[in-house]
Amino acid sequence: MPKRKIAVVITARPSYSRVKTVLSAIQEHPDLELLLVVAASALLDRYGSAVNYIEKDGFVIAAKVFNVLEGENLTAAAKTTGIGILELSTVFDNLKPDIVVTVADRFETMATAIAASYMNIPLAHIQGGEVTGNIDEKVRHAITKLSDYHFVASESAKERVIKLGEDPTMVFNTGCPSIDLAEEIIKSKILPFDPYEKYGGVGAKPDLSQGYLVVMQHPVTTEYKDSRKHIEATLEAIYKLDKPTLWFWPNVDAGADGTSTGIRAFREQHQLPNVHFFKNMEGKDFLELLQHSDCLIGNSSVGIRECAFLGVPVINIGSRQNRRDRGGNSVDVDYLQEQIEVAIIDSVQKGKTISSSIYGDGKAGLQIAVKLAELPLQFHKTIMY
Amino acid sequence: MPKRKIAVVITARPSYSRVKTVLSAIQEHPDLELLLVVAASALLDRYGSAVNYIEKDGFVIAAKVFNVLEGENLTAAAKTTGIGILELSTVFDNLKPDIVVTVADRFETMATAIAASYMNIPLAHIQGGEVTGNIDEKVRHAITKLSDYHFVASESAKERVIKLGEDPTMVFNTGCPSIDLAEEIIKSKILPFDPYEKYGGVGAKPDLSQGYLVVMQHPVTTEYKDSRKHIEATLEAIYKLDKPTLWFWPNVDAGADGTSTGIRAFREQHQLPNVHFFKNMEGKDFLELLQHSDCLIGNSSVGIRECAFLGVPVINIGSRQNRRDRGGNSVDVDYLQEQIEVAIIDSVQKGKTISSSIYGDGKAGLQIAVKLAELPLQFHKTIMY
Amino acid sequence: MPKRKIAVVITARPSYSRVKTVLSAIQEHPDLELLLVVAASALLDRYGSAVNYIEKDGFVIAAKVFNVLEGENLTAAAKTTGIGILELSTVFDNLKPDIVVTVADRFETMATAIAASYMNIPLAHIQGGEVTGNIDEKVRHAITKLSDYHFVASESAKERVIKLGEDPTMVFNTGCPSIDLAEEIIKSKILPFDPYEKYGGVGAKPDLSQGYLVVMQHPVTTEYKDSRKHIEATLEAIYKLDKPTLWFWPNVDAGADGTSTGIRAFREQHQLPNVHFFKNMEGKDFLELLQHSDCLIGNSSVGIRECAFLGVPVINIGSRQNRRDRGGNSVDVDYLQEQIEVAIIDSVQKGKTISSSIYGDGKAGLQIAVKLAELPLQFHKTIMY
Amino acid sequence: MPKRKIAVVITARPSYSRVKTVLSAIQEHPDLELLLVVAASALLDRYGSAVNYIEKDGFVIAAKVFNVLEGENLTAAAKTTGIGILELSTVFDNLKPDIVVTVADRFETMATAIAASYMNIPLAHIQGGEVTGNIDEKVRHAITKLSDYHFVASESAKERVIKLGEDPTMVFNTGCPSIDLAEEIIKSKILPFDPYEKYGGVGAKPDLSQGYLVVMQHPVTTEYKDSRKHIEATLEAIYKLDKPTLWFWPNVDAGADGTSTGIRAFREQHQLPNVHFFKNMEGKDFLELLQHSDCLIGNSSVGIRECAFLGVPVINIGSRQNRRDRGGNSVDVDYLQEQIEVAIIDSVQKGKTISSSIYGDGKAGLQIAVKLAELPLQFHKTIMY
Repeated sequence: MPKRKIAVVITARPSYSRVKTVLSAIQEHPDLELLLVVAASALLDRYGSAVNYIEKDGFVIAAKVFNVLEGENLTAAAKTTGIGILELSTVFDNLKPDIVVTVADRFETMATAIAASYMNIPLAHIQGGEVTGNIDEKVRHAITKLSDYHFVASESAKERVIKLGEDPTMVFNTGCPSIDLAEEIIKSKILPFDPYEKYGGVGAKPDLSQGYLVVMQHPVTTEYKDSRKHIEATLEAIYKLDKPTLWFWPNVDAGADGTSTGIRAFREQHQLPNVHFFKNMEGKDFLELLQHSDCLIGNSSVGIRECAFLGVPVINIGSRQNRRDRGGNSVDVDYLQEQIEVAIIDSVQKGKTISSSIYGDGKAGLQIAVKLAELPLQFHKTIMY
Repeated sequence: MPKRKIAVVITARPSYSRVKTVLSAIQEHPDLELLLVVAASALLDRYGSAVNYIEKDGFVIAAKVFNVLEGENLTAAAKTTGIGILELSTVFDNLKPDIVVTVADRFETMATAIAASYMNIPLAHIQGGEVTGNIDEKVRHAITKLSDYHFVASESAKERVIKLGEDPTMVFNTGCPSIDLAEEIIKSKILPFDPYEKYGGVGAKPDLSQGYLVVMQHPVTTEYKDSRKHIEATLEAIYKLDKPTLWFWPNVDAGADGTSTGIRAFREQHQLPNVHFFKNMEGKDFLELLQHSDCLIGNSSVGIRECAFLGVPVINIGSRQNRRDRGGNSVDVDYLQEQIEVAIIDSVQKGKTISSSIYGDGKAGLQIAVKLAELPLQFHKTIMY
Repeated sequence: MPKRKIAVVITARPSYSRVKTVLSAIQEHPDLELLLVVAASALLDRYGSAVNYIEKDGFVIAAKVFNVLEGENLTAAAKTTGIGILELSTVFDNLKPDIVVTVADRFETMATAIAASYMNIPLAHIQGGEVTGNIDEKVRHAITKLSDYHFVASESAKERVIKLGEDPTMVFNTGCPSIDLAEEIIKSKILPFDPYEKYGGVGAKPDLSQGYLVVMQHPVTTEYKDSRKHIEATLEAIYKLDKPTLWFWPNVDAGADGTSTGIRAFREQHQLPNVHFFKNMEGKDFLELLQHSDCLIGNSSVGIRECAFLGVPVINIGSRQNRRDRGGNSVDVDYLQEQIEVAIIDSVQKGKTISSSIYGDGKAGLQIAVKLAELPLQFHKTIMY
Repeated sequence: MPKRKIAVVITARPSYSRVKTVLSAIQEHPDLELLLVVAASALLDRYGSAVNYIEKDGFVIAAKVFNVLEGENLTAAAKTTGIGILELSTVFDNLKPDIVVTVADRFETMATAIAASYMNIPLAHIQGGEVTGNIDEKVRHAITKLSDYHFVASESAKERVIKLGEDPTMVFNTGCPSIDLAEEIIKSKILPFDPYEKYGGVGAKPDLSQGYLVVMQHPVTTEYKDSRKHIEATLEAIYKLDKPTLWFWPNVDAGADGTSTGIRAFREQHQLPNVHFFKNMEGKDFLELLQHSDCLIGNSSVGIRECAFLGVPVINIGSRQNRRDRGGNSVDVDYLQEQIEVAIIDSVQKGKTISSSIYGDGKAGLQIAVKLAELPLQFHKTIMY
C-alpha cells in the first residue's frame, strides 16, 4: 500500500515550533510521507526565517510559497490570504496530498484551509476550539467548520468543537504538540547554551546567573492602532525595574509596525543597560530559556501553554489570551505600567509553580501521526444538528 | 449624519435574484448608501450575465471584479476565491464601506467574507444556518463564524446559527428575500409575457397553454465527477414524458462542464420536439413562469423556497437540497429516470399545494435594510460558550 | 558536472506542436534536464487539452499552473498574465532552472518572460523578430527585449532582432521547430489515419478521397469586436462552395467567444452537409491532413510556415499574418466572402507549390538543444547602441 | 466633448517627484481629467509614503493598490509585478481611462504597461530610451515596445527609441519633468527650511551653514548580493571624511535589505557625529537641499539629471547610472572607499559647475500634457522595419 501523503503547511516561526514533534512523528511513521510546505512569514528574514531552522533540523521542503503582501495593515492581511489560496491550490494540485494539515489560527492559515477544503482534500486542524476573544477567534472557528479532523489541545477545546456541530468521532484531545518539547526539557538544571553567543541580537548583555525576565509581546489584531501605546507600557515597566531582561521582537501581524516602531523609538530615547533584544530562537532553546527564567512577560501563548507545564510564572498582558484555559502559573494584567511592574515583582518573589497538564502531557505529535495514518479519508460532512 | 455605506457583493445570477429586494430597500432607505459590487460569474456571458439585468434594473455598479479562473474543476474554485480576496480587498480599501453584505453559500462568497472580516469591516450574512449536506455546508457555516450580523430565512436556521455560538441578539429571522418577489406575483392569473420572444434560447417552442414543466438542475460540487450521469437521468425522463418543457442551463460550479456537456450531447443524439432551452431569465419572470407551470424538476433551491410559497409542485432530485426545511410542495427522488418520471406524473395530477411561509412572508428586503441602518457597527465578537 | 536544468513553459496547444522537437531534443541531450511546465489554455478542455497529448507523448510534467481567467475579453487576458507571473515565480523558485525557454508571442508567454527575467534566470526566446502588425507584435518584441538568447525562424527575423539592439552573438537562425515535424511527413503519399475515427468531432463526415479543404481561423486580438463578422465571411464562402471541408475550432484569445459563437449560430441556422468540425488534432496528424488537402483557409501561422515547406496552397484571411515572411504558397484576402471563395477556387485549380525553406529545413529542435547546452549562462545585458 | 481621462500610475516616491509637474499640468489642462492611481511602494511607510505627499499636494487619488510582495528578493519583485497586473486591470476596467501613463523603468511599472497595452488602452511612457546597463534596461526597453507614445528626456534617448523600431512621429523629446522643479529653485540663495525640524530623521544634527554632503545610494538589482559590501565602502568614506552629511535611506528594490542592513549595522558599530539620516523628503525640498550642498554622493539619477541642471557636483558610484547621458557635473567612481573619498575632496574644492540642459529646460510637464490632449488615440502599432 502506498504511503499516505500528508501535507503540512507552516506559515510562521511560532507555528513551526508548535508542531515540530508532529512533523518528526509523521516523518518517522512507516505509513506516512511528509510533504512540508513553507510559506508566508516563515520564509522572511524579519520574522525570524523559520525556514532556516526547518532546514537545519533536517526536514526536506516540498514547496516554498512567498505570499506576504507588504503593508502590515489589515488590507495586506486579507491579500496575503488571497495570494496564499491562489498559490497553495497549485501546490496541492501538483503534490496531490491525501490529507492537508493546518495549524492554529493565524490569519493566513485560512488559505491552507480553503485551498484544501475546496479541492476536496481531507483537512486536519491542530488547535481548534480555543477561545480568546479577538479576530483570531473568527478565523479559528471558521477553520473548524472547514476541517474534517480536529486535533485539539484541551478538554474544553474538545467540547467547544463538538458544540460547533462537528462529528465527535472526529475530534481528538491529543494535547498541544508544543508541550512535547517542554516535556523533553522540564528536568534541565542549567541553561545549556549562551544565548548571546548562539543568537546574537542587539543591546546590553546582562548577567543571567542571578535570574532574568523574558519579554515577548505581540500586537493584537483587533487593537492594532494602539499597538505602540501598548508596547510602551511594558517598555516603561521593564525600564523602571531595571533587571536582566531578554526581549523578543514581535512576529508579523497587522500592527507589528506599531510594536516594532515603539520598541525602536524607546531604544533611541532611553538607555537600557539590562536589556538584550533577540529576533528569534529555536523552539527548544527558547523553552530552556523560559525554564530557567524568573518570569515571562507579554501576551505569547507560550506563557499559557508551555509555561503552565514548566511551572514558570507568567505576567499575561492585555486581551490576546483572553478566555484561554489557564494553569496556575499566570497573572493577568492590563496595558498599564504599574500593574505590570507590581505583577512582575510578586511573581518573581513567589517563584516556580507546579506543573499543569491542562494542555497535554507531551505525546501530542505521536498521537496525531497515528491518527493521520488511520483515519478514514473523507472530506464530506454535515453539521450534527 | 453621513449615510451608512453598505457594500453588497453579487457573484452569481441566482444570488442577484435572491437579494434584489434587499438592494432596492437599501437604495431607498434614507440613511443608507448602496455600494454594489458585481463579481465572478455574475459578469460572465455563459452564466447568464447577471450584470446586464442589474444595469437594466437601474442599479449603479460601484465596482466590477472579474475573478473566475477557468477550469471548472475544484482547483479553479479555490483559485477563484483567492483572486476574489485579493481584489475585493482593494475594492473595499477604496470604497470604504461601513458594512459588507455577503449572500448565501456559493464557494466564492467566502472571498467577500474573508476580505471584509480581515479588514475589520462589519460583515452581514444573508441565509446562514441552513443545512444541505454537501460542500456548501462547510462554506456556509464557516461564513457564519466570520460574520457579525445574521439575516436567516427560517426558524430552524436561526436556532442553528445560535447553536454555532453566535450572539442571539445578532441573529434575525427575516425570511428569505427571494420570497419578496414571489409575494408580488402570487396572485397573477396568466403568464404575462412570451418567454420565447423575450428570452430567445434554443430548441423547440412547445405550446405552453395546456401546462408545462420547468427543469433546472445544477451539478453538485461534491459529486462533480458524476454530474453528466446525473443530468442524463433527468434528460431521459423528460425525453420519455415528451411534455412541453422549459429547461434552464446550470450555473457555474465545478462540474458545470459535465452537466452542460451532458445536455449538449443528448441534444445532438435525440430529437426533443417539446423542449426549449433558456440560458437565464429575470428573477420575477422566472417566478411567473413557475407560478403558471405544472411542476419544477431539478435541484434548485427555488423549488424549496419560492415554490413552497407559491404552492408549485417540485420534484427535487438528488442530494443538493438535503436537509433543507421543506414546505408541503416537494417530493424527493434519486438520480433515476423512472423515479423522476413517476414523480412528475403524480405531481402534475395532484396540482397546486397550499402556500407555506416557512421561508418568510415577503418582507425580508425591507427588514434587512432597516437592521443595516440601526445595528451597532461592530466586528469584534467571541463565541458564546 | 550536473546537467543544466532547462524549464520550458507551454501555454497553448499550438505552442506545444511548435516546439515538440525542441522538447525531445532537450530530453535526449546528455547535458540537459528538461523541466516541462504546462500552463494556461494548454490545460483546458475547451482549447484542446494539450496536456493530454504531452502526457501521451511521454513527457514528464514538472508543474502545472491553471491561470486562465475567464471572460475572454482583454481584461481577462491581462489578468491571466498577472496570475501567470505570480505562480510561475513560485514554480521557478522551487524548480531552480538554469535557463527558461518561452515560445512565440501569445499574450500569456509574457508571464514566463517576466518571471524568468526578473528572477535573473537566463531567458531563451523561440520565434522572436517576426512582424505581423497586431497586438502580438507588442508582446513579441517586448519579450525580445527581456530575453538573453534568441532562436529565430528566418533571416529577416534575425536581422530584426539585431536591429532591436540585441547582441548579434546571441541571435541564432535555427529555423522554426515546427518545420521539423513537416520535414518528417513531407514525403507521405496517403493520409495515414481516419480523422473522424481518431478525433471524433461533430457535423457531417464528407468523403475525403477526392480532395478537401481545411479551415482554421482565429480571432485577431486587436479586432476582437469584429470576430463574429469576420468568421461569418468565411462561413458563408465555405457554405456556398459546398466542398468537403474539415474545420478546426479557434484557440483561446480575447474574442474567441465571437468566433465560436459565430460558428455555433451559423450551424444552427444552416445545413452544412460537407463540413466536419474538430476541436483539435495532434501536430503531426494535422500536418498529414494539410499535406493531403487541396488548400488551407484562415489565418493560422501554419499556413505561412509549415504549408510553405509542404507546398500546400493557403488562403490567408485578414491581418493576423500581416508582414510575416511568405513562401510562394499563399494568397492574401480580406474578410470578404467573395474574395475568399474566388481565392479557394483558384488555389485548388493550381495545386501544390514548390517547397520553401524560408522558415528552416527541419533541424531546429536539435540546434536549439545544442545551443542551450553550450551558451554561457548570463542574464545581464545592455542595448547595443 | 468630454475630457480625455488620463490615468497616471505612481508606484514609488522618486517617480512621484519626477512627474509631479506632469500631474499638475494634466490637472490644469481644460481638456484632460487626471485619474491618479497610487500603488506599490508609494503606499508604504518604510519607503517614504509618497501617498502622504501626494495628498498633501492636493491631488485626488482615484484608486490605491497595495501590491508589494514581501521578501525583498527577486522572486518578490516578479510577484509584485504579477499582482500589479491583476489589480490594475480591474482598476482600468472600472475607471476606463483614455490613455494610461507609466513612468520610467522600475520593475513594477511593467505591470502598468502590460495591463494597459493588453486592454488596448493607448500607453504613454515617460523616460524611455535611456541606457544604464542593468536589469532596469530590460524593463525600460520592453516597456518602450509596449508603449504607443514616448516622452523622452534627451536627444540620445529619442534616437534610441526610434532605433528600437518606434514610429518617429510618436517620439517626443520633452526633457525630463524632474528638471521642471529644478528650474523653479535654481536661483534660490539660501536653504529655505530647517531639514531636521521639517523631516525629523535620526542621528546627529550637524551644522549645515559651512556646507554639507548629501548621500543617496540605492542597491543595484543585478548586484543585489553585494549591496551590503557596496554600501559599506561609502559608509567608510563618509566616516573617515567626518564632514556634515545628510544621508537618505534607499528605496525598495531587491537588495534593499542588504543596503539598509549595512547602514544599520554600521551605525551600531560606529559613532557618526556628523551624519543625519532621513527617510525621505518632498521633491522640491530635496532639490533645495542639493542646490545648497557641496556635493551629492551615491548612485541616484538625481545626480545625473537635476544636479546637472543645477550645477551641483556629483560623485557617482558604481554601475547604476552606467551609460546615461552626463552633464559636466559628475565624476564616476567604483565601490571603493578611497576612490570615493578622494573624489569628494576634489569636487568640494572645485565647487559648482555650469548648468546643463541635456535633460531639458524645465517645461516637460506642460509639453506632455499638451501632447496627451492632442495625440490620436491609438494602440495598434507595428515595428518600423
